[in-house]
Amino acid sequence: MEQTKGSLTVVSGFSGAGKGTIMKALLKKYESYCLSVSCTTRKPRPHEVDGKDYFFISQDEFDARIERGEFLEYARYVDHSYGTPLPWVEEKVKEGRDVLLEIEAQGAAIVKKKRPDTIMLFVVTPDAKTLVQRLTGRGTETKEVIAERLEQATREIDRISSYDMLIVNDDLDAAVERVHNAIQTLKYSPIRQADFLSDFRKDLIGEREKL
Amino acid sequence: MEQTKGSLTVVSGFSGAGKGTIMKALLKKYESYCLSVSCTTRKPRPHEVDGKDYFFISQDEFDARIERGEFLEYARYVDHSYGTPLPWVEEKVKEGRDVLLEIEAQGAAIVKKKRPDTIMLFVVTPDAKTLVQRLTGRGTETKEVIAERLEQATREIDRISSYDMLIVNDDLDAAVERVHNAIQTLKYSPIRQADFLSDFRKDLIGEREKL
Repeated sequence: MEQTKGSLTVVSGFSGAGKGTIMKALLKKYESYCLSVSCTTRKPRPHEVDGKDYFFISQDEFDARIERGEFLEYARYVDHSYGTPLPWVEEKVKEGRDVLLEIEAQGAAIVKKKRPDTIMLFVVTPDAKTLVQRLTGRGTETKEVIAERLEQATREIDRISSYDMLIVNDDLDAAVERVHNAIQTLKYSPIRQADFLSDFRKDLIGEREKL
Repeated sequence: MEQTKGSLTVVSGFSGAGKGTIMKALLKKYESYCLSVSCTTRKPRPHEVDGKDYFFISQDEFDARIERGEFLEYARYVDHSYGTPLPWVEEKVKEGRDVLLEIEAQGAAIVKKKRPDTIMLFVVTPDAKTLVQRLTGRGTETKEVIAERLEQATREIDRISSYDMLIVNDDLDAAVERVHNAIQTLKYSPIRQADFLSDFRKDLIGEREKL
């Protein structure tokens, strides 16, 4: 009787809260994690590797996969489409890997609906002032863009209640440990251990009959 | 802007899974934890200390507290009553303590209803066979009692889905760490950080106006 080991985690967060940096550090520090690789219909750039950066597929193949329900979530833009391949994710989870998927709140809600055992993490700065500082610090954002990011963050705050965990990124190392602890804890919640509990129930009845 | 630090955790589990031992070890290892002290109308036994083992109160006082809604949960037996004092628990949580309350599944559901931010942990043995071994190992239980405990465990399995976390007690030290990690992780879930998030929202709007 084994507990389920693999997991799928969605990581959302304020633009500027440092999701990407946390995930990069997490992948470097612990072997069990892997990033979800998306499918895209756009052409690979010179340095990009198929199956590592993206799965590069044709629009026909993309549409066929939509038909077969093979995307956890997907988005169609004017020129290209992007999607998260469900069979690939399921295979990695079955292998015992902790799959990470960086995605905004709307996409996260779709993933959660398809896989209710998805762990949902939301990364925030310690406070609003720090968020402004980080966005300003990039040096590339205009005042208008920063204002838009703050409005977006205000809207996102109202969606955080559907997340399992709030990750405050006050310090990179601490935030990485928080994400790691959250995933390693939450994957043993009862809703994620349904098989283990159902086996346990059968065994309890068996043991009682043996008495 | 501060995150909420204190917490209330309900610990339930199979009879024989080792809840009591885990909690004792947890209290010894980390300072932030304290056990909830119940009120009772029975007389103190020689070694018992008021305010430590129990709060010893009269039946009139007990009934008055029920009237005032001052119990998180309570039970009346033929001779005596027992109850968990809500104001005491709230004071400890406000002080930043992690309050532990050992209680069976039915009582736990009542506590959760009164305080939806309660962390719910359920302790199980690694498998059914180990549960039988531990119950047999006590040497004090008849076959009938063990059969009854197994039936009870089977009923409890069906209530575990309302718990936040399943704690498998395969090894005492590991189980203590699992409980500790679960509490220190779950207390930062969004539903338990409502004040922090509401302050954050206000500050985001303030920062935007300052731009």
